[in-house]
Amino acid sequence: MLWYNGKLIKTEDVTFDLSDRGLLLGDGLFETLTAFNHIPFRMDAHLERMMDSALRLGMDLDRMRMREAVLAVAKLDKAPCIIRLTVTRGVGARGLVPPKPATPLIFATRAPWHSALAFGEAKLAATSIRRNPTSPMSSMKTLAYLDSVLSLQEAQAKEADDALCLTPTGSIACTSMANLFVLNQKRLTTPALDGSILPGIMRRLLLDVAPQLGLIANESECSLADLIDADLVIASNSVRLLTKIIEVDSIRVSRTPSSAWSDLQQAIAEIVRQECNGYRLAV
Amino acid sequence: MLWYNGKLIKTEDVTFDLSDRGLLLGDGLFETLTAFNHIPFRMDAHLERMMDSALRLGMDLDRMRMREAVLAVAKLDKAPCIIRLTVTRGVGARGLVPPKPATPLIFATRAPWHSALAFGEAKLAATSIRRNPTSPMSSMKTLAYLDSVLSLQEAQAKEADDALCLTPTGSIACTSMANLFVLNQKRLTTPALDGSILPGIMRRLLLDVAPQLGLIANESECSLADLIDADLVIASNSVRLLTKIIEVDSIRVSRTPSSAWSDLQQAIAEIVRQECNGYRLAV
Repeated sequence: MLWYNGKLIKTEDVTFDLSDRGLLLGDGLFETLTAFNHIPFRMDAHLERMMDSALRLGMDLDRMRMREAVLAVAKLDKAPCIIRLTVTRGVGARGLVPPKPATPLIFATRAPWHSALAFGEAKLAATSIRRNPTSPMSSMKTLAYLDSVLSLQEAQAKEADDALCLTPTGSIACTSMANLFVLNQKRLTTPALDGSILPGIMRRLLLDVAPQLGLIANESECSLADLIDADLVIASNSVRLLTKIIEVDSIRVSRTPSSAWSDLQQAIAEIVRQECNGYRLAV
Repeated sequence: MLWYNGKLIKTEDVTFDLSDRGLLLGDGLFETLTAFNHIPFRMDAHLERMMDSALRLGMDLDRMRMREAVLAVAKLDKAPCIIRLTVTRGVGARGLVPPKPATPLIFATRAPWHSALAFGEAKLAATSIRRNPTSPMSSMKTLAYLDSVLSLQEAQAKEADDALCLTPTGSIACTSMANLFVLNQKRLTTPALDGSILPGIMRRLLLDVAPQLGLIANESECSLADLIDADLVIASNSVRLLTKIIEVDSIRVSRTPSSAWSDLQQAIAEIVRQECNGYRLAV
């Protein structure tokens, strides 16, 4: 079951106009959320981010309609699920110029979420594709997501689980699917929002909970050396929540025993419990 | 009429699987060709470029099938037309990892081509989105084409016709839809293929015909100053063929009278006449 332009339908095979700009040009946006007990975690933050991005693209989106789509698929089943909300600028004439007004195409799908996705471990490999801070694609979840696909492919070819993506000047940006944090003693640092990275919803949450755990949250430039030397390296994303990074380019990282790893997991689990009708994440 | 996965059909509304990676992630490629007298101009070069790009993406494409799609829509009517050939990696599971093997989705559409598109004039405005030479998206026609859409939007907001796209170091790259050439006396220079630009089919043709017109073809770095000072600035693309650039950021360019502009048009028109069954472009 999925939500497609206002209706719940049973199949992913739909009637679709091939002149849709999402398909032809990557002209659209998406969000990926996880729902527990029917409740899409941090939905308002995800919708806010999508609305901000739509404004940057000059797309007129109805927030209530986005919300309706997400809630419709969340309500289908109590089992935890991954919800993808996708919106395109809709059909247009040949060429690059967007239609005015545009009629967005909106759909939301769900897939099972498993507890094994959360709080895992991963190895990273640095990839050749640098983030482009001048491109709006770097700081928005657009349908033009191919750099992330190719970065991940490159990392997997090096037998890593995910890519380490760098900025043009070689500092740490993110992975193909997550934001990155490095912990040194009590200092939890993540790259600043300079246009190279997505403003992750889990990233924001982590920055917000850090002080409650006695950590000093900090947004600033991180070097590869900072990452290698860190007590703990964490990737954050809305599906995997937190992932402990254990290797970067075959070098072991997160070598220093730190209570922060379990403190952070417990803090996230507690917020999920409070906001998602008592759902208990395995920590 | 369009060609969709092996069949000619009448409508752009098709049955489509919403888990197609072209739609969800921009994971696919396209080519835009112009056909005269049923003959898609330089089709082999376009197919070659698509096959090269597919190899870089790790997509297994059947060149004969691509050719069949293009020829099927070219044959529908003798009137000149613009053909868009689109291929996606097909459906996949949730997430970024491509399916193996993938079953590509292929379709080709046609739109009318008008002689007013060719050999026109355009004003450019420099835009804030720099090309990313480390991203495969910069040198391939992928479905993740949003940077070009947004560059054009930005240029049009400045009342220009097209964007002047720069490399990270500020040299000339291309427009949102064309390669660029600058002529100084007999020297015709275009930016080298450093990863920032598409290897244009018309670009290649122009480099090849230049010596026959007594011009010295040259691929190397071009600065904004080179462009402002040039006798003639030309944009090349497969639909508009050649466009004379008459303004860059409100500064008049192509100010020096030069016979090269008409020589180049005539040379292109002659090649179209030879290769497309005698079709005569208005020069």
